[in-house]
Amino acid sequence: MSVLNETHDPSLKSWVASANAAGSDFPIQNLPFAVFRRNGSPEAFRGGVAIGEMIVDLGAVARLLDGVVADAARAGSESSLNALMAQGSAAWSALRLALSRALREGALQQAAFANALVAQADAEYTVPARIGDYTDFYTSIYHATNIGRLFRPDNPLMPNYKWVPIGYHGRASSIAVSGQQFPRPVGQTFPPGSEQPSFGPSKRLDYELELAVYIGTGNALGSPIPIDDAEAHVFGIGLLNDWSARDVQAWEYQPLGPFLAKSFASTVSPWIVTLEALAPYRVAFERNAGDPQPLPYLDSVRQRERGAFDITLELGIESARLRSQGRPAARVSLTNYRHAYWTIAQMVAHHTVNGCNLQPGDLLGTGTLSGPTLDQAGALIETTSGGKNPFELGNGEARTFLEDGDAVIIRGWCEKAGAARIGFGECRGAILPARAV
Amino acid sequence: MSVLNETHDPSLKSWVASANAAGSDFPIQNLPFAVFRRNGSPEAFRGGVAIGEMIVDLGAVARLLDGVVADAARAGSESSLNALMAQGSAAWSALRLALSRALREGALQQAAFANALVAQADAEYTVPARIGDYTDFYTSIYHATNIGRLFRPDNPLMPNYKWVPIGYHGRASSIAVSGQQFPRPVGQTFPPGSEQPSFGPSKRLDYELELAVYIGTGNALGSPIPIDDAEAHVFGIGLLNDWSARDVQAWEYQPLGPFLAKSFASTVSPWIVTLEALAPYRVAFERNAGDPQPLPYLDSVRQRERGAFDITLELGIESARLRSQGRPAARVSLTNYRHAYWTIAQMVAHHTVNGCNLQPGDLLGTGTLSGPTLDQAGALIETTSGGKNPFELGNGEARTFLEDGDAVIIRGWCEKAGAARIGFGECRGAILPARAV
Repeated sequence: MSVLNETHDPSLKSWVASANAAGSDFPIQNLPFAVFRRNGSPEAFRGGVAIGEMIVDLGAVARLLDGVVADAARAGSESSLNALMAQGSAAWSALRLALSRALREGALQQAAFANALVAQADAEYTVPARIGDYTDFYTSIYHATNIGRLFRPDNPLMPNYKWVPIGYHGRASSIAVSGQQFPRPVGQTFPPGSEQPSFGPSKRLDYELELAVYIGTGNALGSPIPIDDAEAHVFGIGLLNDWSARDVQAWEYQPLGPFLAKSFASTVSPWIVTLEALAPYRVAFERNAGDPQPLPYLDSVRQRERGAFDITLELGIESARLRSQGRPAARVSLTNYRHAYWTIAQMVAHHTVNGCNLQPGDLLGTGTLSGPTLDQAGALIETTSGGKNPFELGNGEARTFLEDGDAVIIRGWCEKAGAARIGFGECRGAILPARAV
Repeated sequence: MSVLNETHDPSLKSWVASANAAGSDFPIQNLPFAVFRRNGSPEAFRGGVAIGEMIVDLGAVARLLDGVVADAARAGSESSLNALMAQGSAAWSALRLALSRALREGALQQAAFANALVAQADAEYTVPARIGDYTDFYTSIYHATNIGRLFRPDNPLMPNYKWVPIGYHGRASSIAVSGQQFPRPVGQTFPPGSEQPSFGPSKRLDYELELAVYIGTGNALGSPIPIDDAEAHVFGIGLLNDWSARDVQAWEYQPLGPFLAKSFASTVSPWIVTLEALAPYRVAFERNAGDPQPLPYLDSVRQRERGAFDITLELGIESARLRSQGRPAARVSLTNYRHAYWTIAQMVAHHTVNGCNLQPGDLLGTGTLSGPTLDQAGALIETTSGGKNPFELGNGEARTFLEDGDAVIIRGWCEKAGAARIGFGECRGAILPARAV
């Protein structure tokens, strides 16, 4: 899938004019998947593909297609993408090629496909997959070091970090789609200087800027996925905000890891960008000179040469006041996925090396994707050095942690000369006041 | 559900003679649920209820029942118990009463019900619920202390233990039913004295003796379950073996908790015993004098008086040699659930206090249920003090950790004067040699 083909040609234009606009997240070279319906309608949720400001309704175009491509479109028209995910990379790729050809300027199928478009402005979305298991990794060494310094000043980066792609199981039931609003979580904390724990709304509510990696085809229990087969099992990538209550986390996380500090909500973007769409943005997987060579099950020439992705990620806070002032969200972070210490293929190979089975629709979070400097930090606890240095929103407000009414907006995109821009849309979530306790 | 009713009457006998045998796990006072089919048949898996050595096929008896009871039986006849779980405790209780009456000596429905029985000897089982999320708790303070001493000699019991019902998310996809066999897991370890990690089959493979608590009715995201409502959300209890690779665990678990050390396999018993069946075995929830009072969201009079259960648990190792000698498994542990530091209701109230949503079929593990002495330890790492003191199997063999060919068998039961014995059946799993690496 690192091979470029006709679908990546940057000169392709669509007969859907909005797909050709400069800065569009969804040109014809992207074609990401979501599950949608008309806003507020009683229609069933179903799969669709973004083109400019429109959505191709996969169920509606299935009858215009043939053979495996029609099968893929029908699988994609269900209320989750799991059936399409399970069909495998040849099916995904065939569907992409057929859609690319049908949506191009001059396509014979233009009139028929035009009837199968729904405006994104009229759509609402749901979580695009039935997520059986959610695993969150910890692939940014900058995040691991920043957070480690706050929780364990004497021992910021664990000795296992450069050997083991650290990950842990997350909560699948509380994952919702962009637009999610949730009450500030309540729980136990142990404020410094206290004699016993307190109970109440979290005072250190934070976000985590991550990417969401969706498994396409799974593996049987007991049959690991070798590193160079791993990417063929991955359907695509979305945006993820893994909200975190830092005060709850600090008190609960030893010895078994984060639990209620994370399980109250996680937010994903509606759109999943396929690995094939991202092929032009593959980059070498960079290690520093002193870093150890990964163990053989995590290493391959292909991974070293093309295992990482150049994806820009931006996170903004939109306070209630900024919103009422008609001002945009304040950018808190601008980072890039290429800074990750472990690649997607390494996450998959590691996850399955013990025999653990992955299933279509499973979600692997990359972990917070902080870059080397604080303006690239993917969590407020890093940006504000544990709440010590408030972040100015630019309208007189400042934040140490999130306040009620704040919305957090993550965006992602790939851009470079000689390739089409590939965007991820947005992932938005907002904090409501805590329920009464 | 702590109220005793006619279904608990210890003098009740069934027209299924094997249910009346002394020592039967499944007398008419029990009536646990499983999902089964005839062994090796192409039939669909479907729900059933144990009576003696037989299974009542719920789909087959639904037409003999009326109203909500027929609805419950039909829901229970699906390929998982989730639909029945979602109906709630009034439906479960009504179905139990109807089955108790139909299976009693002298019941008018005997002939019709007799046609709906399948022998357990002819059945195979599957995991009884579609488990959306699996959470494993850590409710034995003896286990937490024993294991803490091995991993952190200076700090065995964390300061949060007596305040927070510690839990973490587990892997749902690799849970299988009793009879599971799996290859010894492979992974990274860091042997003492090494300069860098090793890769290969785990050398410290262990079991964990646990109970499996199945959620019946869930809660909406953002709406916690109060402590005194918690038990009404619980469908019942089975047996659970949460296999653990201790050498993998020791190297990977900081800072985010166990991951590949656990995710290769977990084994559950086929049978789920309802909380209603366990009502005669409720006991007070015991704390030592110096232990802190739980925070209000984890405390209630009802919990203190009746929150714990007197369930005996036994674990045996059946080595390949014992098997070939025709000898029974060697008992390694005999413990009791009443030693747990946190109750089921406390697990549920804590899990949801931050707004996290539980769903029908979710699984809460109790954590390893070690008692106060080493012959009550629920894991080999405790029994053998980290592998230092081998356990004698009684035929000349000894174990520090599990060997290939070993089967581990967990059984559970409740017994006392004046009440019927309530058994859990068995939970068996076996270790195959590691795959070639």
